[in-house]
Amino acid sequence: MALIRSVFQDELDSISQSLVDLTSMVSKSMSDATSAILSCDVKLAEEVIATDERIDECQHDCDARIIDIIARQQPVASDLRALVTALRMGSDLERMGDLAHHVAKIARLRHPDSAVPLELVQTITDMGSAAVRITDKTGVVIATRDTEMALEVERDDDEMDNLHRQLIGILIEPTWKYGIETAIDLTLLGRYYERYADHAVSISRRVYFLVTGKYA
Amino acid sequence: MALIRSVFQDELDSISQSLVDLTSMVSKSMSDATSAILSCDVKLAEEVIATDERIDECQHDCDARIIDIIARQQPVASDLRALVTALRMGSDLERMGDLAHHVAKIARLRHPDSAVPLELVQTITDMGSAAVRITDKTGVVIATRDTEMALEVERDDDEMDNLHRQLIGILIEPTWKYGIETAIDLTLLGRYYERYADHAVSISRRVYFLVTGKYA
Repeated sequence: MALIRSVFQDELDSISQSLVDLTSMVSKSMSDATSAILSCDVKLAEEVIATDERIDECQHDCDARIIDIIARQQPVASDLRALVTALRMGSDLERMGDLAHHVAKIARLRHPDSAVPLELVQTITDMGSAAVRITDKTGVVIATRDTEMALEVERDDDEMDNLHRQLIGILIEPTWKYGIETAIDLTLLGRYYERYADHAVSISRRVYFLVTGKYA
Repeated sequence: MALIRSVFQDELDSISQSLVDLTSMVSKSMSDATSAILSCDVKLAEEVIATDERIDECQHDCDARIIDIIARQQPVASDLRALVTALRMGSDLERMGDLAHHVAKIARLRHPDSAVPLELVQTITDMGSAAVRITDKTGVVIATRDTEMALEVERDDDEMDNLHRQLIGILIEPTWKYGIETAIDLTLLGRYYERYADHAVSISRRVYFLVTGKYA
């Protein structure tokens, strides 16, 4: 029994490591997507778009392994909950990869022009930095189950929400001179960063709940 | 063994019925949210916003029952896959409820004004109808596992994508006279309907895969 338990624990650890690896991939994607849109780098945008398929494959692989563990080990109680939570975290990460991909697609669509006018370069830079900071902390939360860090992710998300409001505020200023199409791009970009951070928060909340049995 | 198997089948059927019920709730929410935004009906918008909590509760309840079935029955192979798929369909439906809620929140935010100018009333009406049609078919797909109907949901989603393109086309016409704020609202509304339909497609694809073992 001790041996079976230990194999099972190794399997759980390996799933956790795969989720941490996925988190790193997703963080790099959003970092690159932000660079691509700020510097009109279509080659980097293409790379982000191509990487999304690899992220999807890694998530599918991780999912299949989780289901296989449930089938073979027939875990109950907290072990089963941890595995179901891992499935959900994989979905969140896959969706974060999609959102980085969406940012990269706007960069590619507008190339060689920039989708981001000068007045918004700082806001998008800050949203990109916040996204990467949130994702990197989320990776630590998955790896260490650090509940303090999980609460920090929530606070970082408040900052993302502030940046999002700041972005919309600039778009609706009467002095806005970049027209509707650019405003549409920026509205969607703002939404993508905001949703990206929401998924990171969702992952941190799941870990918080697994560890404490309470909602953050 | 025959008896256990039959209890298990009853439990699976009951989960399936809960997902069908959730689908009806979500369909009514999006239908009401569309009416609320088209007729500036803030009371109806408030109802949709309140209903979202009930949808979340139903989904949590359904999730807990699925995890309990996995723990007690320890299913393997196709039974386990069906239950994991049910968890994912619940997440999709919960998210569809959120998106109806987002539409209702724009209606409430702009009340007593309308968020939708005259030129776009028909497009939003059509997006609302497409959303409800897609959801109702998705309910049938969950209940009957009809793979033909699952493919129909994909085709209906193409129609939603066309409506979405039509909406963006109207926003970027040089004759657009409703300003940036209205364009932002409509960009987000378009995105909400499109994502809503994407989740319905995702559910239909999951059922298609469960039945055929192939991707649609």
